[in-house]
Amino acid sequence: MRLDDLFAYDSVSLAPEGDGVVIVDQTLLPWEERFLTLKDEGDVYEAIARLRVRGAPAIGIAAAYGLYVAFRRVVLQPGFDESKASSEFFRISRYLSKARPTAVNLSAAIGRMERRFNACMSDGIGIKQMLAALRMEAESIKAEDMSMCLSIAEYGAGLIGRPGMGILTHCNAGHYAVSRYGTALAPIYLAHSRGLAPRVYADETRPLMQGARITVFELHKAGVDVTLECDSMAASLMASGQVDLVFTGCDRVACNGDTANKIGTSALAILARHYGIPFYILGPTSSIDPDAATGSEIPVEQRHPDEVTDLYFSRRIAPEGIKVYNPAFDVTPSGLISGIVTEKGIYRPPYDFTFLKPNETTV
Amino acid sequence: MRLDDLFAYDSVSLAPEGDGVVIVDQTLLPWEERFLTLKDEGDVYEAIARLRVRGAPAIGIAAAYGLYVAFRRVVLQPGFDESKASSEFFRISRYLSKARPTAVNLSAAIGRMERRFNACMSDGIGIKQMLAALRMEAESIKAEDMSMCLSIAEYGAGLIGRPGMGILTHCNAGHYAVSRYGTALAPIYLAHSRGLAPRVYADETRPLMQGARITVFELHKAGVDVTLECDSMAASLMASGQVDLVFTGCDRVACNGDTANKIGTSALAILARHYGIPFYILGPTSSIDPDAATGSEIPVEQRHPDEVTDLYFSRRIAPEGIKVYNPAFDVTPSGLISGIVTEKGIYRPPYDFTFLKPNETTV
Repeated sequence: MRLDDLFAYDSVSLAPEGDGVVIVDQTLLPWEERFLTLKDEGDVYEAIARLRVRGAPAIGIAAAYGLYVAFRRVVLQPGFDESKASSEFFRISRYLSKARPTAVNLSAAIGRMERRFNACMSDGIGIKQMLAALRMEAESIKAEDMSMCLSIAEYGAGLIGRPGMGILTHCNAGHYAVSRYGTALAPIYLAHSRGLAPRVYADETRPLMQGARITVFELHKAGVDVTLECDSMAASLMASGQVDLVFTGCDRVACNGDTANKIGTSALAILARHYGIPFYILGPTSSIDPDAATGSEIPVEQRHPDEVTDLYFSRRIAPEGIKVYNPAFDVTPSGLISGIVTEKGIYRPPYDFTFLKPNETTV
Repeated sequence: MRLDDLFAYDSVSLAPEGDGVVIVDQTLLPWEERFLTLKDEGDVYEAIARLRVRGAPAIGIAAAYGLYVAFRRVVLQPGFDESKASSEFFRISRYLSKARPTAVNLSAAIGRMERRFNACMSDGIGIKQMLAALRMEAESIKAEDMSMCLSIAEYGAGLIGRPGMGILTHCNAGHYAVSRYGTALAPIYLAHSRGLAPRVYADETRPLMQGARITVFELHKAGVDVTLECDSMAASLMASGQVDLVFTGCDRVACNGDTANKIGTSALAILARHYGIPFYILGPTSSIDPDAATGSEIPVEQRHPDEVTDLYFSRRIAPEGIKVYNPAFDVTPSGLISGIVTEKGIYRPPYDFTFLKPNETTV
């Protein structure tokens, strides 16, 4: 089985005519697999802001395509005044960069598109050539994402040494978080395509249920053996001997290896250490923050109490007037991490990422 | 503030006329505080089976009262043939004992009522005296529960040594699980009544949300400072330094101290050990199973997948056709337990409960 046969479509694509960004509305998963074609900057902004497209790499790709599509739409209007190209381009890019405040990939992708636009302006090329250059830049961002994921897949698959291994994961770092293969899930798809039949255990990932809604959906659809559990069941599962590895993604990695990821990740690392199970972080080197020496320099966002008191935006389950603790992520101390799997290889403790200078990383 | 001032009513009571069992329908908490008066064995069976009354001690008390109320209703019918008293009594007792299959307190309470009934029959006393004896037996079961909880409250409160301590709890081992004071929550109520202002953190306790629905409700109502969190947030909370103690209840304790409790408890014990936080189990000695040498002899029930794939019996959140891991509880190894707080005092490791002979324990 070829790895690419596992995926019926990419999470984010450019429509063939170049006039739309095609995504699946992730807020409707797993209930409905609805494709949306985003036609202008308003559509793209709304899709990012409302989490119809989520996952930092996927957001970056959608924003780059969206900037191209929206700019193309404006400049191809009959009678467009080419002297307004620059003001129109930056109007759109500034607007899209505000769709989500904290996703570093969003601003990085838009920054790349802006630099390419400025280079075109310096070269004095025409609108048609400029559009071709911008389209190529956006396609490059996606191609680099796919290449990064394939490298992580290969390095990570090297850890899946025998058939039928049990791998526990948290949140969603898979197909829908990137353009195609995922980060934490990429080695699992690759091992599956090679007939190693990995068994995946997916934490549901309260409060926003990305595990139950998205991870389980995409793995099941690809034919991977997957079992859903509540987050509180991981210790019981590990004690039962069914977990051989823990694979999770990462939101940000400090220079000493401390890793911020979806709330609940650090508990898995502590439990894995207790049960002697290897715990791996998987993600691109662009997630390593050269400006953060340790995890204490990574800010932790407290999110709205409603996420906890209401069950995935439906029924309220807790009484009114109570206090809520709802951090979006936690920081796993580097000492609990067996390895950090990147597109450049697997880093092992003690970690020292200070060789990555500020602004050296890419999208 | 007196401890009893914290509770507006008991979770389970006998109606003053002796013609009903009064409970609050716990399936409606926290949305509605609806009192039910159960008038016959059908009402009582349904309330236990449908979890309108839950918590092993509360179920035992409700069953004892229910048996009295249902039997009283039958024998006080005009023209009742007293020669049928025994067949009627055991018809009702056998029926009620099947309301839930695994709650040991249910069969223990009914067994006590049956022994009292048999003693009355041997003594050849009349129906009126027999009813008075059965009522007294049921009231004794409740009184012993309250006494047990008060002892646990005192021993446990001794661990809450200074004002403003942070105490993390899981599931519900409080007011609604017993007749009034709770087990794991009893020392917290007592410390609160003494002005020590404990800060409680309550795990929501997926999948059935007893923490979010019941623990948070009862503590907030009693004026205790309580904060709700998702189960996956406990490690983050401990890392932040806000947790000084972990208190949970227990479903069953083996002779070596291994303790079965609501799924997620063992993870808290491992996390607490990692962060150097004392972890205590609180419950009556009747929860100690003299027939189980270690935790491996405690059977773990796998419950229905719908509890995990659906959000508290409302919206389905996971795709169809997937596998689910849903154990009702887990076993915390005794080596992770700082102490087991019972009505007889606090036991410390190494635990050896073999001095409790089989059948020596009470309801």
